[in-house]
Amino acid sequence: MAEKKAIADALICTVDVVLLTLHEQQLQVALIEREHAPFEGALALPGGYVRTAQDRSTTEAAVRVLREKAALASPWLEQLGSFSGPERDPRGWSLSVAYYALVPAALLEGQPGLQLRPVARLPRLPFDHRAIIEAAVARVRTKSQYSSLPVHLCGETFTLPQLQAVYEALLGEPINKVSFRRKIDQLGMVEPVEGAQELGRANRPAQLYRLRRAFRQKLSLLERGLNARN
Amino acid sequence: MAEKKAIADALICTVDVVLLTLHEQQLQVALIEREHAPFEGALALPGGYVRTAQDRSTTEAAVRVLREKAALASPWLEQLGSFSGPERDPRGWSLSVAYYALVPAALLEGQPGLQLRPVARLPRLPFDHRAIIEAAVARVRTKSQYSSLPVHLCGETFTLPQLQAVYEALLGEPINKVSFRRKIDQLGMVEPVEGAQELGRANRPAQLYRLRRAFRQKLSLLERGLNARN
Repeated sequence: MAEKKAIADALICTVDVVLLTLHEQQLQVALIEREHAPFEGALALPGGYVRTAQDRSTTEAAVRVLREKAALASPWLEQLGSFSGPERDPRGWSLSVAYYALVPAALLEGQPGLQLRPVARLPRLPFDHRAIIEAAVARVRTKSQYSSLPVHLCGETFTLPQLQAVYEALLGEPINKVSFRRKIDQLGMVEPVEGAQELGRANRPAQLYRLRRAFRQKLSLLERGLNARN
Repeated sequence: MAEKKAIADALICTVDVVLLTLHEQQLQVALIEREHAPFEGALALPGGYVRTAQDRSTTEAAVRVLREKAALASPWLEQLGSFSGPERDPRGWSLSVAYYALVPAALLEGQPGLQLRPVARLPRLPFDHRAIIEAAVARVRTKSQYSSLPVHLCGETFTLPQLQAVYEALLGEPINKVSFRRKIDQLGMVEPVEGAQELGRANRPAQLYRLRRAFRQKLSLLERGLNARN
């Protein structure tokens, strides 16, 4: 340890996860009450120190944090970026590698430790957690324009109108149905679940779809964004 | 220091910069010979420890590295992501925040410490520097499809055919001239330099352009990629 300290400055290294879901047609972020100082008791992003004895990467640290603090096994998870500096943490110069995860709201139900808050009305947050959440939301919205990313907010199976509603909630504007269906075809990311239908509101059965296996761990990308004019 | 060590594991924290340029119509990366162990004498990415006493963020550390090792003042610089784990550095568990920078080749000329290598034919590299370079190149190619990013590889002024050649070299395929001009108009990122023309090969003078001031520090984005069909 002495040797390491001689060659590199000591700094605090953590991971934080922006856990996003769609609840009441709104994009919401899952926050938890901090158990320890600094900011004990405050709502904050789930996060923690990188534990070099057990985490083989910061991604593994983020996966561990989600497992320990949100009981999630393998949600869609991507690195957002690093946030660093001498003032973001009162304990000293710190670096947080931030991730974002997308999960269906059903996976978060019944977890008393987690509190959902709409990203459009965030409470006061410690550290630079507001900036981290805003960066994650901007990234998710941009990526949603041209990829299969939003499907990770849906449950195992969904109808195409439900999927369209998810895209619309994320992008914050209506999408033309014909154009949406064409884009979804182009993305090639979903497949009908054979023999599975859901009764629609007008009692017209709607076909259920699911994400194709090939896209559970990688995104499908559009050449043109969903809202590109023509 | 004892307090910090008590609350967080010690790990090595560095920044590395993938410094890209266009040379002989090829995307090339600038490498330097390492002055110290490990891998002393090997060609590697310019990088270094985060110095908490002077760097106010990892971005500032990357800017300092470029200033010290490549004599560059303010190139286009963006964070690529973090690379971490117990095995990427023989000194122990390490985390590198990687950045990529785009500069015109002229800015790198006459710097004996820097060696350019085509990204398509990388030499053997220490650490995970090959993976970092490949990730940077993939990011730059994707972003070049729908943004003004490649303009940072051009000099102060350039003709539209020169700018098109830069896009083509990056994307690795020819672009239709009419479609290219329309996209450049949509991006609104360049402006003609009044009264400045360059003699073309057939002695037809070509208008010189420059990047608009508003886009020197932020990208202009297209709704549709350059190679989107139709």
